[in-house]
Amino acid sequence: EIDADRLWADIEALAAITDPDRPYTRRSFSARFLEGRDWLIRAFEAEGLACRIDAAGNLIGRLEGTEAAAADPGVLMTGSHSDTVPDGGRFDGIGGVLAGLAAIRAMRAAGYTPRHTIELVDFLAEEPSEWGLSCVGSRGMAGALGEKELALTGPGGETLADAIDRIGGNVAELKSARRDDITGFVELHIEQGPVLEAEGIALGVVTGIAGISRVKLAFEGEAGHAGTTLMSMRADASMALARFQLRMRDAAVAAAAAGRGHFVATIGVVNILPGGANVVPGRTEAIIDIRAEDTALMNEQVELYRQFGEAAAEMEGCRLKSFERISNVAPAACAPGLRAAISQAAGERQVSTRDLASGAGHDTVFLSQVAPAAMIFVPSRKGQSHCPEEWTDPAQMAQGATCLLDTLLLADKA
Amino acid sequence: EIDADRLWADIEALAAITDPDRPYTRRSFSARFLEGRDWLIRAFEAEGLACRIDAAGNLIGRLEGTEAAAADPGVLMTGSHSDTVPDGGRFDGIGGVLAGLAAIRAMRAAGYTPRHTIELVDFLAEEPSEWGLSCVGSRGMAGALGEKELALTGPGGETLADAIDRIGGNVAELKSARRDDITGFVELHIEQGPVLEAEGIALGVVTGIAGISRVKLAFEGEAGHAGTTLMSMRADASMALARFQLRMRDAAVAAAAAGRGHFVATIGVVNILPGGANVVPGRTEAIIDIRAEDTALMNEQVELYRQFGEAAAEMEGCRLKSFERISNVAPAACAPGLRAAISQAAGERQVSTRDLASGAGHDTVFLSQVAPAAMIFVPSRKGQSHCPEEWTDPAQMAQGATCLLDTLLLADKA
Ligand SMILES: NC(=O)NCCC(=O)O
Ligand SMILES: NC(=O)NCCC(=O)O
Repeated sequence: EIDADRLWADIEALAAITDPDRPYTRRSFSARFLEGRDWLIRAFEAEGLACRIDAAGNLIGRLEGTEAAAADPGVLMTGSHSDTVPDGGRFDGIGGVLAGLAAIRAMRAAGYTPRHTIELVDFLAEEPSEWGLSCVGSRGMAGALGEKELALTGPGGETLADAIDRIGGNVAELKSARRDDITGFVELHIEQGPVLEAEGIALGVVTGIAGISRVKLAFEGEAGHAGTTLMSMRADASMALARFQLRMRDAAVAAAAAGRGHFVATIGVVNILPGGANVVPGRTEAIIDIRAEDTALMNEQVELYRQFGEAAAEMEGCRLKSFERISNVAPAACAPGLRAAISQAAGERQVSTRDLASGAGHDTVFLSQVAPAAMIFVPSRKGQSHCPEEWTDPAQMAQGATCLLDTLLLADKA
Repeated sequence: EIDADRLWADIEALAAITDPDRPYTRRSFSARFLEGRDWLIRAFEAEGLACRIDAAGNLIGRLEGTEAAAADPGVLMTGSHSDTVPDGGRFDGIGGVLAGLAAIRAMRAAGYTPRHTIELVDFLAEEPSEWGLSCVGSRGMAGALGEKELALTGPGGETLADAIDRIGGNVAELKSARRDDITGFVELHIEQGPVLEAEGIALGVVTGIAGISRVKLAFEGEAGHAGTTLMSMRADASMALARFQLRMRDAAVAAAAAGRGHFVATIGVVNILPGGANVVPGRTEAIIDIRAEDTALMNEQVELYRQFGEAAAEMEGCRLKSFERISNVAPAACAPGLRAAISQAAGERQVSTRDLASGAGHDTVFLSQVAPAAMIFVPSRKGQSHCPEEWTDPAQMAQGATCLLDTLLLADKA
């Protein structure tokens, strides 16, 4: 049985390891992040896990299985990430690492030694960081960290490669982080959305994770003095962007209602240049974040947005200077066998579940490229995440950890 | 006669005093700005001007008039400012200071000693600076620098008061900067707009300067995860702002065409918060810059924009969190006597002129509160200003300086 009080105490201990003026923040690669990892290493070792940092910078605690030496059945892996976005939440990521720790603690308390070797992992830099890439560690495990990604630069011009080495990875040996020995991966995570709470359901069985595309676009008009440039003579790049925003949103609302799975599109980053109160904007830049379970719908919408960009620019006497797909992660399906195990585990304890898609990206996306992988969601109060108000009740966390434990036990027997 | 070559050489000398990586930039209160002032002090002194920095931080060069001791007819003042916006132009401000210097040089070369004492001034910080206030020095001369303005803070938390003292002013004695002895002020400036060039006219006789209001507004919606917050559940503060921008612009176009004088409204500063690519914007802030010759039109439009803000917020499920008039400078009329002198001076040399309003703010606005004041505009190529491309031909500058000289001579005789 999961020790619910101990799990909650661990969550509070990690919440206390934060930038003091910005709770709850542990940015990947920062000193605060490494402080959190030190805590994790001590806690992993206290449960008998052998700790290492793999070449991609993931922290891995290993419990040797009874059959590891003989007819090795492969590794059962669980875990999530301990880094956060700025202001970023007591549960997002770390909840899954600590639920995994609670599951292993329960096995040890019950004197259960698993058949499979079990690994508990804290993936490096799941959240978008100052290096502009998310899921760094899980990409490494999937062999999806290439030259281009490693050359990205962060604060002070440090490359991602150097940053990985700095926190204990070994980019020269990156191939060694690539895994083909994982027989199953299960990640517990908060939903970060409103569905489970709204429907009063305890756990989500994730069917798949929406693909994510990012598009960067720029409009170019003509900068001018705000006092002397007559209204009739303007090519105001911010008006082209405003037109574009409204039209893109209307199309995204229609796409979401089209019955083709989860779909959302968001503009969260906007740059108005030169950005003076008395200067007519000559250039605007924006990033669109688009998520879809259906790749065809994703591509149709991106093409539509390009057309909207051209049209908005023309109506405002501006130019669509660039429209570039800067990143693209394909949607991932969760493994049917593990999904069934999660449902069965919950059912045996009379805990309610429902299938749902994840609109948020997760390390599971990359693990699913090299192993059967699945996710358990616990409810998020008001669907809030990536903010200090992010919340899941202690009992809900314990229910999730119990389901994770039972799923690992089912998988160990399979 | 104006020494046109010497005037142009002076303009080039000042253009060379710039932040090397951002031509042409001399931000007020910066080391570069003080370097420019050192050049000006040496040049003023070379023409026999006695230099001082007044309590408000203005550099003043003084040529004693023949009647200064006896029945003092008051001071004739000319000048402009030597600070720039970032990337900001070889002519904006400094052209008027150097044209004034060229006029005094011409008087001396002709052996002319004026009846009035003549003062040549480089006003402190005309452009909006990191302290958020424009026309700092001319406000000081008009007694319009109060506690509120002096308490504004800039880089490193330095107050405006401390910054003025640092560059040679004396805020403790600020009252001494207030002037009531000026019998006439004439400022030469580039038009910063397209009218003179478009109509092939040499000089503008400024009728008045539009009033400037700044409104700061904020929309509040609900921040959320871009992947999990369904399109149907969003309160995206950036959509409220986009709606507002388009509607405000349409109203401003109509107001400009209403035949009630110069009117423009601009949003040059936008802030999207929290500003993450994967976060639905929960808050947006913007600054509106509104200019009108007609104060009633200004007030009607501001009220209309407030209504648009409320309506846009409501349509997007957001709130208009604030809508605040953060600054207001009333329109200023130029003095009829000096306007007539400028027209007469140009007419006597068969130089074409036209009356026009200034959409840009100028130190003349504040001088007009304590003295008869007027402005001469020289053409701006393509109307461009506040950018490295800002340009006025050498011959056009010389024509302007000649008109300034002739206007000062007419005023000296009056
Ligand atoms: N789960 C999560 O918040 N991942 C961060 C990447 C994203 O989905 O934007
Ligand atoms: N002339 C000029 O550019 N003044 C700066 C203040 C403004 O008009 O925005």
